[in-house]
Amino acid sequence: MLSKTKIKWINSLERKKNRDEKRLFVAEGTKIVSDLLPLLKCRFMGVEQSAFKDEYRNFSDEIEVITPDEYKKISFQKSPQGVLAVFEKPTFDIQYEEITENLNLALDEIQDPGNLGTIIRLADWFGIRDIFCSHHTADAFSHKTVQATMGAIGRVRVHYLDLKIFLKDLFEKMPVYGTFMDGKNVYHENLSRNGIIIMGNEGSGISDELLPFITQKLMIPSFPENGKTSESLNVGIATAIIVSEFRRKFFKTGKKM
Amino acid sequence: MLSKTKIKWINSLERKKNRDEKRLFVAEGTKIVSDLLPLLKCRFMGVEQSAFKDEYRNFSDEIEVITPDEYKKISFQKSPQGVLAVFEKPTFDIQYEEITENLNLALDEIQDPGNLGTIIRLADWFGIRDIFCSHHTADAFSHKTVQATMGAIGRVRVHYLDLKIFLKDLFEKMPVYGTFMDGKNVYHENLSRNGIIIMGNEGSGISDELLPFITQKLMIPSFPENGKTSESLNVGIATAIIVSEFRRKFFKTGKKM
Repeated sequence: MLSKTKIKWINSLERKKNRDEKRLFVAEGTKIVSDLLPLLKCRFMGVEQSAFKDEYRNFSDEIEVITPDEYKKISFQKSPQGVLAVFEKPTFDIQYEEITENLNLALDEIQDPGNLGTIIRLADWFGIRDIFCSHHTADAFSHKTVQATMGAIGRVRVHYLDLKIFLKDLFEKMPVYGTFMDGKNVYHENLSRNGIIIMGNEGSGISDELLPFITQKLMIPSFPENGKTSESLNVGIATAIIVSEFRRKFFKTGKKM
Repeated sequence: MLSKTKIKWINSLERKKNRDEKRLFVAEGTKIVSDLLPLLKCRFMGVEQSAFKDEYRNFSDEIEVITPDEYKKISFQKSPQGVLAVFEKPTFDIQYEEITENLNLALDEIQDPGNLGTIIRLADWFGIRDIFCSHHTADAFSHKTVQATMGAIGRVRVHYLDLKIFLKDLFEKMPVYGTFMDGKNVYHENLSRNGIIIMGNEGSGISDELLPFITQKLMIPSFPENGKTSESLNVGIATAIIVSEFRRKFFKTGKKM
């Protein structure tokens, strides 16, 4: 039976302050939990009988089979997911040499946890290993974000730092891209194999203080040109199109596309 | 003062059954409502004093200035938006000649209202005028979807129909594309200027019954090839990348890219 202390401990992880202090977070659902188990240290699993798998024992020291009623007490979700796990947040140093050779993302105050999760998931798909977030960006380990990553949170390294200081160090060593309404058509620009792509806040875009570090301004053209369309794209969608375009240009075909 | 009848009438539009019967839907927030006012017939507006604009009078027969407390009673949102409007759902016939010349989307049981709204918004950005949804796709006029379209619901024509019958009629007249894990690399394929792109359900993809009508199977490659990445992309993200790739290939540059 789940103790009151355990229930309280899990519920406390709904708050960022507690996740930060304890360096823990919660994931729910068979798919995501199974994805994360081989990647991150699991401290506790609560599993409904119907969702139990023997292999879970290989990964978690503490597993409790719980009733649906107990599950409800610890779940962060509206609909039951059968499995809830508490993982240790991964820690990693920034590898500057690796970064300057890779394609990276920087997120400047992305507010919506769902957008952040979607971006982490697509970064993983497109082989982006590091995402650098300003301190005011949503928390990558909030429940909504973790669920939206569909497990990618275990593979992509998400760092929180002062983007201004970070970019000041790096912008002379590698290209820094930003998306703007008055940028240049991303389909036609020469893009680099390495660099940092900055994506800005949902409402206000990229902060003024980061502009000095941007070496190339990009724009996703709407279609047809000068037609009456939406005024903007969702930031997850824009990130996907930009990253896809970088990857397309260097996709192994024997020829540069 | 807002009458009880009016409050009940607005609240009733939270249910699809009532939206369908009355052919009405609700939008909230200055940006979305202002976008929709010139495009759709507005039947009622409730506006908080602080959000009131004179120009609203040009578009709506019935405007009530309401208190924050009254606003809460009619709002579908957690955080107050200042303006709520009830619009008539647009109606339109399917223009087969136009469709066969254009690029269109078909959605096969997209379940998440947020995903649907995002897809409508990006369709608008990329000049896609018609989206054909299977009957089991989420409702384009649900509140969550409308808000996620950011006003694009007023420009894109969303049709609900039996996709099987619809595609059976059309697949010999224009290319029908679908996205599959074993499809061909979308970056390298010849794509047509016109056609229908089918996007499948978040979990199970495109229904078997639609497979006979697909003339070209596409795939978005992950990067690096054969690397360990996310197993899939969010359906809104995948739609964006595919549609962007169609548009890129025909973007006016004097040369085909």
